[in-house]
Amino acid sequence: MLNDILSRLDELYPEMIELRREFHAEPELSYEEVHTPAKIAEYLRNIGIDVRTEVGGRGVVGTLVGGKPGKTVALRADFDALPIQEETGLPFASKHPGKMHACGHDGHTATLLVLAKVLAERKADVEGTIVFIHQFAEELAPGGAIAMINDGCLDGVDRIFGTHLWTPIPKGKVGYSYDRLMAAADKFDINITGFGGHGAMPHQTVDAVIVGSAVSLALQQVVSRNVDPLEPAVVTIASFHAGGAFNVVSEVANLSGTVRTFSKTVQEQIIKRMEDVIKGVCDAYGASYEFHYSKGYPAVINHPEATEWLKQSSESFFDSANVYEVPPVMGGEDFSYYLQKVPGAFFFTGAGNEQEGITYPHHHPKFTIDEESMLIAAKHLGAVALYALAELNAATEAVK
Amino acid sequence: MLNDILSRLDELYPEMIELRREFHAEPELSYEEVHTPAKIAEYLRNIGIDVRTEVGGRGVVGTLVGGKPGKTVALRADFDALPIQEETGLPFASKHPGKMHACGHDGHTATLLVLAKVLAERKADVEGTIVFIHQFAEELAPGGAIAMINDGCLDGVDRIFGTHLWTPIPKGKVGYSYDRLMAAADKFDINITGFGGHGAMPHQTVDAVIVGSAVSLALQQVVSRNVDPLEPAVVTIASFHAGGAFNVVSEVANLSGTVRTFSKTVQEQIIKRMEDVIKGVCDAYGASYEFHYSKGYPAVINHPEATEWLKQSSESFFDSANVYEVPPVMGGEDFSYYLQKVPGAFFFTGAGNEQEGITYPHHHPKFTIDEESMLIAAKHLGAVALYALAELNAATEAVK
Amino acid sequence: MLNDILSRLDELYPEMIELRREFHAEPELSYEEVHTPAKIAEYLRNIGIDVRTEVGGRGVVGTLVGGKPGKTVALRADFDALPIQEETGLPFASKHPGKMHACGHDGHTATLLVLAKVLAERKADVEGTIVFIHQFAEELAPGGAIAMINDGCLDGVDRIFGTHLWTPIPKGKVGYSYDRLMAAADKFDINITGFGGHGAMPHQTVDAVIVGSAVSLALQQVVSRNVDPLEPAVVTIASFHAGGAFNVVSEVANLSGTVRTFSKTVQEQIIKRMEDVIKGVCDAYGASYEFHYSKGYPAVINHPEATEWLKQSSESFFDSANVYEVPPVMGGEDFSYYLQKVPGAFFFTGAGNEQEGITYPHHHPKFTIDEESMLIAAKHLGAVALYALAELNAATEAVK
Amino acid sequence: MLNDILSRLDELYPEMIELRREFHAEPELSYEEVHTPAKIAEYLRNIGIDVRTEVGGRGVVGTLVGGKPGKTVALRADFDALPIQEETGLPFASKHPGKMHACGHDGHTATLLVLAKVLAERKADVEGTIVFIHQFAEELAPGGAIAMINDGCLDGVDRIFGTHLWTPIPKGKVGYSYDRLMAAADKFDINITGFGGHGAMPHQTVDAVIVGSAVSLALQQVVSRNVDPLEPAVVTIASFHAGGAFNVVSEVANLSGTVRTFSKTVQEQIIKRMEDVIKGVCDAYGASYEFHYSKGYPAVINHPEATEWLKQSSESFFDSANVYEVPPVMGGEDFSYYLQKVPGAFFFTGAGNEQEGITYPHHHPKFTIDEESMLIAAKHLGAVALYALAELNAATEAVK
Repeated sequence: MLNDILSRLDELYPEMIELRREFHAEPELSYEEVHTPAKIAEYLRNIGIDVRTEVGGRGVVGTLVGGKPGKTVALRADFDALPIQEETGLPFASKHPGKMHACGHDGHTATLLVLAKVLAERKADVEGTIVFIHQFAEELAPGGAIAMINDGCLDGVDRIFGTHLWTPIPKGKVGYSYDRLMAAADKFDINITGFGGHGAMPHQTVDAVIVGSAVSLALQQVVSRNVDPLEPAVVTIASFHAGGAFNVVSEVANLSGTVRTFSKTVQEQIIKRMEDVIKGVCDAYGASYEFHYSKGYPAVINHPEATEWLKQSSESFFDSANVYEVPPVMGGEDFSYYLQKVPGAFFFTGAGNEQEGITYPHHHPKFTIDEESMLIAAKHLGAVALYALAELNAATEAVK
Repeated sequence: MLNDILSRLDELYPEMIELRREFHAEPELSYEEVHTPAKIAEYLRNIGIDVRTEVGGRGVVGTLVGGKPGKTVALRADFDALPIQEETGLPFASKHPGKMHACGHDGHTATLLVLAKVLAERKADVEGTIVFIHQFAEELAPGGAIAMINDGCLDGVDRIFGTHLWTPIPKGKVGYSYDRLMAAADKFDINITGFGGHGAMPHQTVDAVIVGSAVSLALQQVVSRNVDPLEPAVVTIASFHAGGAFNVVSEVANLSGTVRTFSKTVQEQIIKRMEDVIKGVCDAYGASYEFHYSKGYPAVINHPEATEWLKQSSESFFDSANVYEVPPVMGGEDFSYYLQKVPGAFFFTGAGNEQEGITYPHHHPKFTIDEESMLIAAKHLGAVALYALAELNAATEAVK
Repeated sequence: MLNDILSRLDELYPEMIELRREFHAEPELSYEEVHTPAKIAEYLRNIGIDVRTEVGGRGVVGTLVGGKPGKTVALRADFDALPIQEETGLPFASKHPGKMHACGHDGHTATLLVLAKVLAERKADVEGTIVFIHQFAEELAPGGAIAMINDGCLDGVDRIFGTHLWTPIPKGKVGYSYDRLMAAADKFDINITGFGGHGAMPHQTVDAVIVGSAVSLALQQVVSRNVDPLEPAVVTIASFHAGGAFNVVSEVANLSGTVRTFSKTVQEQIIKRMEDVIKGVCDAYGASYEFHYSKGYPAVINHPEATEWLKQSSESFFDSANVYEVPPVMGGEDFSYYLQKVPGAFFFTGAGNEQEGITYPHHHPKFTIDEESMLIAAKHLGAVALYALAELNAATEAVK
Repeated sequence: MLNDILSRLDELYPEMIELRREFHAEPELSYEEVHTPAKIAEYLRNIGIDVRTEVGGRGVVGTLVGGKPGKTVALRADFDALPIQEETGLPFASKHPGKMHACGHDGHTATLLVLAKVLAERKADVEGTIVFIHQFAEELAPGGAIAMINDGCLDGVDRIFGTHLWTPIPKGKVGYSYDRLMAAADKFDINITGFGGHGAMPHQTVDAVIVGSAVSLALQQVVSRNVDPLEPAVVTIASFHAGGAFNVVSEVANLSGTVRTFSKTVQEQIIKRMEDVIKGVCDAYGASYEFHYSKGYPAVINHPEATEWLKQSSESFFDSANVYEVPPVMGGEDFSYYLQKVPGAFFFTGAGNEQEGITYPHHHPKFTIDEESMLIAAKHLGAVALYALAELNAATEAVK
């Protein structure tokens, strides 16, 4: 059956591309997704899959009950875009200024939809149930996963798998990890209040641009000096906004950013050091501040057995030299919430292509993917779903 | 005649307040002034003054030809507002979010209009011509002055005077200077381009927030280390904008600000040092940049004789202890352009009032004025106009 | 035989303490060791061990040829001190201002000497040869190890073991690693030249204190922004010296420090980024610089088999719960050179003791050790030496 | 008489050079002067002048009682050197490593000695008394002036004059000021204590190099942002010393420097801002600090009448185009103390020479003077001494 599915995916690859490009041209930001989930639901319905919409808010869950009895495996794809102005120059580039599918979620969605179609075509042979979780709002905490879980998307699910199309890995390769795969991803806001005034009379002011700049630079040493060098950690100040007229000293500077860690201890240490640094620097300059830190997605920790199934199923049809263990990455993913409820594995499907200039990092205005990565991802997701069902069903048999 | 004018101004003080509050509630940004000049023109017409509108773009010039022959003296008031969100909580606060009369130009306008009314009432006795220059766009280079001059607003004018309501000086005091009064005011933009990417993978990026912060701080030593401590100089970074989503490393940071100097040599030195600092810091971090520096208004340099006339006329009716020489200030003013064409003097009319909490610096969101300063300004402007006409006419007589 | 040795070590523990305190009171800096090696050589000779002095310069090598034939195992201890002013207040504190045994090498030496004595007493039963390598100049690259190796200290040696008394680990515990244990440790110097002058006339100078400070802070982002967060790395500026008189702007600032990495790629990347940062910042301020980077000790990479022997031998007499795998540390050690020539393992012997306030990090002016850690270290070193000889000899037998 | 003195000075110019070079080769630091005052005393005695040594410690005062009755005028020269390593390469360069006459005090001394000789030769014609104050320790607060005053060096003195050989002004010119000439010169020490440790384990430390660097840079904005741009001010961190071994994180960083101001209000504001900045930055990094600020010499404020005498006497023999009013400089001088007791004037004698490469600022390792400036200085000092005596005596006459 796997071979049939793989070759059918090859046949439908053009449809996958077309779908992805349609999603790409019409990006919707996290928590603002309207057309995307509607389109997903319509597609799933058209291929005869049971659909539940507005799951946890804007999520779509398709359920394919196979022709034979068995356990339940879920596959997940996310579908939200980012507030980035696209600069790819692609013919199917975003039609919406300031919004862009710069992380590949368009590809995730196309991948899973076409895989669902192929599996639906072979429904009679499926031994158990396959759940297609199309998740909204992965990019922005609290994220859609937790809302969809609370709304029952994992009910009855025995295992879950997902993948991320990943440009740092070349197309044609698949990376897995037995435990830590992605980091805890937190968000913070620092709002600094100085004292505004005329740009020519700085001595009557407390200059929020200067205080914000000093805070930004001083926070660099939290990672360089305060965190154990053996513990991976990131403190990024992603945005800095202060001032308007060129001749008015800014009263306020608003900074925001993200912190990435794997260890809870390091996470807490960084929060404390950030507060100390911000307070000290603001005191030095006579400014006041508000510091809001919101813990985001926990780290993505895979389950070893599910990871082993992934490895086995992938190697059953794919050159094993191209399926390999990878070190964790600092990016966050709310797939972690699914893994806290149900055993499973998240993995990377290589989507980079140096010869074709597909080398931009995720979230870059020129980010794109080698579209063939979608076909590969669909195959590995399909394979592991069937493999997991077989393993789970066999185990059940064995117990009887 | 002066006494009549002074007491009539006292009578019309309520109208001055009402006018100022109307202007205050309806601020219009530089080069966007529509209702303000229309209202000014209507007022001047209503009091029987000859009006030319759209002078140099959006300026309004009223001409009062006196009943007796004589020379011509101009008085100037500016009428534009600033892109600042008002936080005064006043009942007549700005109705337009993000726009505010935070520099007192509303008061300048009300002052000059009511003075024009009073002088117009005494037209028959005026020996010569008084020109009322209502200038647009003082806050934003290239400024309205140069455009209005080019459009003839100084044609036939022998002397010019103007004042700024000034909160750093207490209400009830008037400050003058025989030469340097206000600084050259330049504007610059620094656009830094790094390399964007995922906030969790800083090593794949060049972080524009960090580069911008480093530039902001490094530029501090231009004044602290590179400029002769005896030469007044200001380098203010007024705005800093970078980034959007909390988890995307900024590709771009846009900074803008102002430089203030009195000496041309120091001005050139600062431009060169800024370029070196920006280049060096960007090189250090692997970023590129564009640096645009536009020289703005030159320094306001008063003419000694005209200043002496101001002093004499002011002391003729005002406690001379409250009319005193002041050191220059670092703020700029395009009144400098008028002074490059025609002798004259610009002076400060105290508008602060500590007991009433009127202490916020110009351009501050809580800036306001002690309104009585308008009445005082009107008196000094009126007095110097008549005094200057008398001196000029006498000199002409003497020559004959 | 092991049990005899362990109990004899218990008996000689007071001598170990006495020896350590003598060494502690008389610290000698790297490459300046005179009395310490003399004393070591004398001790070894007194206990009947063959001694070679001035090995590689100032090293001492003792060779104990056992009564029975067999392979050769080396044990190593270093004996140099640091240029730190001791602040422990101990009765046996350093007698030499500015010099201190702040890394525990005094303890290493005492440990190995007493172990040698005990093994020498049982010489007849030793199956093979045990080499005692007393190394000079571990603290300062190029280090004594490479010189001693070049001078033959490893000739004929089949395996090598060593330990570091380690306060971050509590006394009573032993930490090992199958591969990466300690980082590559490099050294750099940054000599910045500005332009000196009168402290009151900064505009005539290029201030080396400011340039040096800007370099120090800008280098923080090499680790925080440029290095992959998953790769451990340290850039420390350990010293900063600039200026003399309080009123003279420094012409020169001399900085030095250390870089720690495990990966060659990261090491090269850091060198390049450091150069770029230093150059950019110096350009920004108009200073020039020299940047000297000398690669120091490579990373300490243990051999898995030898590590396994250590684990087995330690657990044969010590609570196995207290013998555990540890993550690598960022400190460097020239033990790495021995491991590049001969299989072996380096391990940590816990020397901290929170209740007794023995918590200061290595190289701190108040650093000290729980002396019982020496006794424990001696036992584990003795045990692994005998175990390794047995394993090696057995393997030889097997081959025959 | 003036003409005789001027031409005799021309004759003795070679001796002046020789003396200056002798002093130059043998610099002695402030409060360590031994040979210099001895040599001065010997010279004065040899020319028949009454000498008092050890005045206020190490000062030398010569008194020439003229042949005719009259008032008393003092002339002052300082004779201490600086802790700077000379890099001039001159044949008469400093023989003492790390010590240098880098401020021209060698020239001051030679100037005044030869002038004394010439005046002593004409003793009979001198109407009144001339006091030659050779001051020690001008470079280092509290300075020799106050000690010498307390020890009576101004007793009976009616007026005092002094000059500084000054390379920023070309040889051949003389600069005077009617009031502010030199700034108040204060000294500060900042001792930062972090927490030392191993350079590879920064997370166990508080890195004093980083804290010191952050303090150095943050203090830049005291001048650039906190001080009124119209008020001259300097904050210089002249020295920064931290750390020893390249692999030990510094526990301590010691910074020192100078603050220059003219206004007491600005001085107090800077002290407060410095304390706030240091405290805030240390808090941010978790370090502690000590901040010692010692107010040094007050500003040099000349007396207008005495300045007028200087101008008149100088123009009586020197091209008046080369005697001109100069703006104040930020350098400090303890000549201020004399001026607080006795009317007088301090002035600059140009000592630069661009064609000959004599352009290095004071306190620079390559600083030197155009020696002809000494001859010019001697003439102006001699002229003003005689002129002042004549004016003072005439006034006394007039009173009678």
